[in-house]
Amino acid sequence: MTELVLIGIGAGHPDQITLEAVDALQRVDVFFVVDKGPERHDLSQFREAVCRRHRPDEGYRTVRLPDPERDRHPADYGAAVRDWHQRRAELLAAAVHAELASDGVGAFLVWGDPALFDSTLRVATDVALQVPGLEIVVVPGISSIQALTARHRIPLNRIGRPVQITTGRRLAAGEVPEGCDLVVMLDGAAAFMTLPDLDHIYWGAYLGTTSEMLIEGVVADVRDDIIRARADARERHGWIMDTYLIRRNDQLGGASRV
Amino acid sequence: MTELVLIGIGAGHPDQITLEAVDALQRVDVFFVVDKGPERHDLSQFREAVCRRHRPDEGYRTVRLPDPERDRHPADYGAAVRDWHQRRAELLAAAVHAELASDGVGAFLVWGDPALFDSTLRVATDVALQVPGLEIVVVPGISSIQALTARHRIPLNRIGRPVQITTGRRLAAGEVPEGCDLVVMLDGAAAFMTLPDLDHIYWGAYLGTTSEMLIEGVVADVRDDIIRARADARERHGWIMDTYLIRRNDQLGGASRV
Repeated sequence: MTELVLIGIGAGHPDQITLEAVDALQRVDVFFVVDKGPERHDLSQFREAVCRRHRPDEGYRTVRLPDPERDRHPADYGAAVRDWHQRRAELLAAAVHAELASDGVGAFLVWGDPALFDSTLRVATDVALQVPGLEIVVVPGISSIQALTARHRIPLNRIGRPVQITTGRRLAAGEVPEGCDLVVMLDGAAAFMTLPDLDHIYWGAYLGTTSEMLIEGVVADVRDDIIRARADARERHGWIMDTYLIRRNDQLGGASRV
Repeated sequence: MTELVLIGIGAGHPDQITLEAVDALQRVDVFFVVDKGPERHDLSQFREAVCRRHRPDEGYRTVRLPDPERDRHPADYGAAVRDWHQRRAELLAAAVHAELASDGVGAFLVWGDPALFDSTLRVATDVALQVPGLEIVVVPGISSIQALTARHRIPLNRIGRPVQITTGRRLAAGEVPEGCDLVVMLDGAAAFMTLPDLDHIYWGAYLGTTSEMLIEGVVADVRDDIIRARADARERHGWIMDTYLIRRNDQLGGASRV
């Protein structure tokens, strides 16, 4: 049986990787890497450091896959993403066929957790439908949401209350549910600027790394600080990976904000 | 400085613990354990196995804290929980004072991730307000949600779409947001029975352990199977820890269910 393992390697802290992930890493014959261009240089360095640390034997190969062109401002976002996945699945199916023995183990090292706003699992599932005998294995990893709450030392949820994980795109479109705190992912356009003044924001970037940045406070007080921090960071690193939790200032929670 | 470390130890798989958690475990002088009574015997066995594995030196002490009485059917759920936390905080503050040296390290081993539907962090934060010089550290762990999606080999979110993490209590009360998939925690009363027939459920219990159970399918097809599986498991183990993801059968996602 051929295996394709999606290994969550955490959100940036080199020790936020599980023993299960380390064990999985040690079984890998071929690491597949999707070539994202120079802006993701730090991310690929992190992946390489993970390999060097946990595979000192160097008994593996790395196979680079091109990333198909993608329409970044499509009329139909979902359809454009699915089309892009489809083309990635074709490239990966060919690579699995060409590079892995029938009892071989291929792997992707996935930033954070493979289940959370990452397309690798969808692509791999498509490939498994095309390649008979290919088994998909998912190894969970610490997500940026968990790194965020850990570093701010806050619970994700208030007592007995819901939390919605959503995107910057939806927040910017005004899709803010009532009575529900929010975690916002993939917010390239600073959608938090649209939040009410009295909401409370817990923001973090490059979590767990030496470049980590944390800002928290009432939105009215800190939104400009976050804008400045993001601009500085983008200039310094060439990219930013950030996320935030919003405690809505609504009446449902009464006096308790935590 | 005195440290109180909340260490996430994962949802049941002994290897789903991070290197950071193992390092933290190795610095601990005193493990605090809240005595939950016999029904949590398996959980305390898991904690003890974690200690035996990662602290073969046995150079630590274990201090048991009683769990204050709690009204399980209060008129005001939030107030009852906050009152219970307050009494736990008083007990913990006294224990930190009595058991930890001024440079000592105390810890709780927290099931799953310390940020997610667990009260230890709230209690610890209260204690830090009462005990000068007490530093709280949070070490994230793999949550049952992550174990669930990994074992079902599914993404948590559909492409660009939100996911709400909520409770069985809220689901039973009909608080089901539109256009949003759901993760349901703490569902002691089988609130999934109230879901529409065509929603899709991914259910799991004792995730990552040798007793793991997984069921998935359209709600109409599998809801009775889940009821039976839960009843059998409760009889066999004396307790159950389960969670599930619901893909709502709404129109927003079009043809794509994944």
